[in-house]
Amino acid sequence: MQGNTPHGRAKGADLALAERILAGMGNPALAVILWDGSRVGPSDTVADVAVADRRALWAIALNADLHFGDLYAAGRVRIDGDLQTFLETGYRAMDGQPTPWPLRFLHRWQNRPRRNSLNGSRENIHHHYDLGNDFYRLWLDQEVMQYTCAYYPSESASLEEAQIAKLHHVCRKLRLKPGDTVVEAGCGWGGLARFMAKHYGVKVRAFNVSQEQLRFAREEAERQGLSDRVEYVEDDYRNIEGTYDVFVSVGMLEHVGTEQYPELGAVIDRVLAPHGRGLIHTIGRNRPQLMNPWIEKRIFPGAYPPTLREMAAIFEPYAFSIQDVENIRLHYARTLQHWLERFEANVETVRQMFDEHFVRTWRLYLAGSIASFTTGELQLFQTVFTRPDYNELPWSRAYLYTAGEEGA
Amino acid sequence: MQGNTPHGRAKGADLALAERILAGMGNPALAVILWDGSRVGPSDTVADVAVADRRALWAIALNADLHFGDLYAAGRVRIDGDLQTFLETGYRAMDGQPTPWPLRFLHRWQNRPRRNSLNGSRENIHHHYDLGNDFYRLWLDQEVMQYTCAYYPSESASLEEAQIAKLHHVCRKLRLKPGDTVVEAGCGWGGLARFMAKHYGVKVRAFNVSQEQLRFAREEAERQGLSDRVEYVEDDYRNIEGTYDVFVSVGMLEHVGTEQYPELGAVIDRVLAPHGRGLIHTIGRNRPQLMNPWIEKRIFPGAYPPTLREMAAIFEPYAFSIQDVENIRLHYARTLQHWLERFEANVETVRQMFDEHFVRTWRLYLAGSIASFTTGELQLFQTVFTRPDYNELPWSRAYLYTAGEEGA
Repeated sequence: MQGNTPHGRAKGADLALAERILAGMGNPALAVILWDGSRVGPSDTVADVAVADRRALWAIALNADLHFGDLYAAGRVRIDGDLQTFLETGYRAMDGQPTPWPLRFLHRWQNRPRRNSLNGSRENIHHHYDLGNDFYRLWLDQEVMQYTCAYYPSESASLEEAQIAKLHHVCRKLRLKPGDTVVEAGCGWGGLARFMAKHYGVKVRAFNVSQEQLRFAREEAERQGLSDRVEYVEDDYRNIEGTYDVFVSVGMLEHVGTEQYPELGAVIDRVLAPHGRGLIHTIGRNRPQLMNPWIEKRIFPGAYPPTLREMAAIFEPYAFSIQDVENIRLHYARTLQHWLERFEANVETVRQMFDEHFVRTWRLYLAGSIASFTTGELQLFQTVFTRPDYNELPWSRAYLYTAGEEGA
Repeated sequence: MQGNTPHGRAKGADLALAERILAGMGNPALAVILWDGSRVGPSDTVADVAVADRRALWAIALNADLHFGDLYAAGRVRIDGDLQTFLETGYRAMDGQPTPWPLRFLHRWQNRPRRNSLNGSRENIHHHYDLGNDFYRLWLDQEVMQYTCAYYPSESASLEEAQIAKLHHVCRKLRLKPGDTVVEAGCGWGGLARFMAKHYGVKVRAFNVSQEQLRFAREEAERQGLSDRVEYVEDDYRNIEGTYDVFVSVGMLEHVGTEQYPELGAVIDRVLAPHGRGLIHTIGRNRPQLMNPWIEKRIFPGAYPPTLREMAAIFEPYAFSIQDVENIRLHYARTLQHWLERFEANVETVRQMFDEHFVRTWRLYLAGSIASFTTGELQLFQTVFTRPDYNELPWSRAYLYTAGEEGA
């Protein structure tokens, strides 16, 4: 085991601390194996966690949400059994468990997320999305490079089919028609923008602050002969100008931060035509809760998944009318499973690009995200909205499900 | 014109006041005709409002939202032109117009809604729903007696077809299966409860505080041989006990009042099984706003249509997971049009049952409600929710739109 230091035999205090950790988690069917092989926990477990040294045990006791990930990445904790099962069992048991009060203050200080000022956002996004397009290409879908929740027309659909179905689902919800102008906030590698231009005959201006992603997006648009209909702008969503028939944002709101929602609402109000349609696709919550602090610090700086109530800070001031909210969280669990499978199939390449620490970090991030969606800790909301007095609404949602490329 | 008193010629002050009223409304394409025939407003109008006396003019100037309805019902204001067009034009123009500050305090005091304590609710509901089943039978659909928004499978569907389609839509969203137990909060004349038992093989306990409605509901259940599967309980939703597979409430939340939402959430949490599904169908708003005070006082005491943010006070404390929100406000405009047509077709009978004042009150209430939905002042939300860790979710919403009795 990496990072192991000779700690000799575990003492009574170590065993008591391990017991306390399990009790604080609500005594799940998991055991702790200490560095000398002593075992704490029930006899019948679904997976066990092996802790390599005393400092690791204390770090978990003080702030498991924050430290477990780093310890796992460093190889100082190891899961004996299936990682996914371990995470889901832990999440289910911990749900609703109170944090003892002395730790609450520590967590409040240690777990606070980074801010999303104009500069802060740029750095936060750079941290994650500029890891290199080659890395993401190893495990995302090969056709439209979507790093957001797919929509599986059937449970047996492939990742490629599901990402294309997601794009159609979004376009149909927005009722795109040829000639419409679309502004996209947070466009990733530009897949949705190109897809809209190609399949729905619209003109798209797509905003992103990630240079790496935009370089790829522009090259692809050029290659597909779409440069006259898709413009990629390296700028913050707060700087969007102009008027558009459609506002769309897929997988950006998680990075915006609730303190910026009033400004996002003002941006949408400024740029959306009277007859405009809008859609926001975002990870969400049933009740307010910070992002897992390890994910926030190591993976997605500044990230915060909102509740529908929190999202109202975008819509209510301008009386935007919510037409449709769909929660497809189980589709995100499936998407992440597909990503993790491809990640593992290419893990040697990833290890060569980065190192073992990176591999373990990403493995835990992907597996932990699956567990968050399967246990209902995280939601995936697609919200469609219009101006309040817009009456050219579809008569029902049936048109979304009639024979089309989604095959729904 | 009724209620006309000799006021002689309108003075300069009267004309100035009429001008001020129109300016306060945002100068719509409407004119005011005073008691002596003088006309204030643009030359090109879609409808005009004739005011019979000086006191009526002052009442409108001080609080049109509250007094206009009473004056209309008393025949002291008359609409020259189409009532619907007048109302829609007025609503559109007034949207976003600020109330001058001296009036704000008056309105805050005059327009405050009644409370929904246990006794208050009973009185509030009695006021409206116990007008007599014979009255409602004149203009509601003849098959399932629904006094809530219908769901029109096509724009040409009849009221009867649309109310039955609504019931199927609700049942399918709840994924009822034979043997399920259902609790309904606010069951009206019991149509949904009987429909569920008859067509979906479930057992229903349905709560209502309106005696008149329950008498009808029980007689109908008896007549249809459903008494063993449907139990009607004359009690408040706050007193629901037991555990159920399904919680449903169609058209009650408007009468609950936001101050009671935490308790409603607690009730749902207490009675919904771990695998339970819930649906709340309610009139709503894009942003918080009191019910029109005349409607609140004369038609629906204690009523308040919430925003989705306000509804979160029901769901968030228990981490109920919102699966689906559908806004079908244009279906309510259509439903109300059908009701108003039947009301007018039976207006002589209504006049004999009550009086001309009642006829005019209800005409304005129905026409004003149509205008509220067509102008986007009011919304109609159907919200589906489950426990947070419930994973037996439908894979997509396509099943709602496959061939069925809805014909969607």
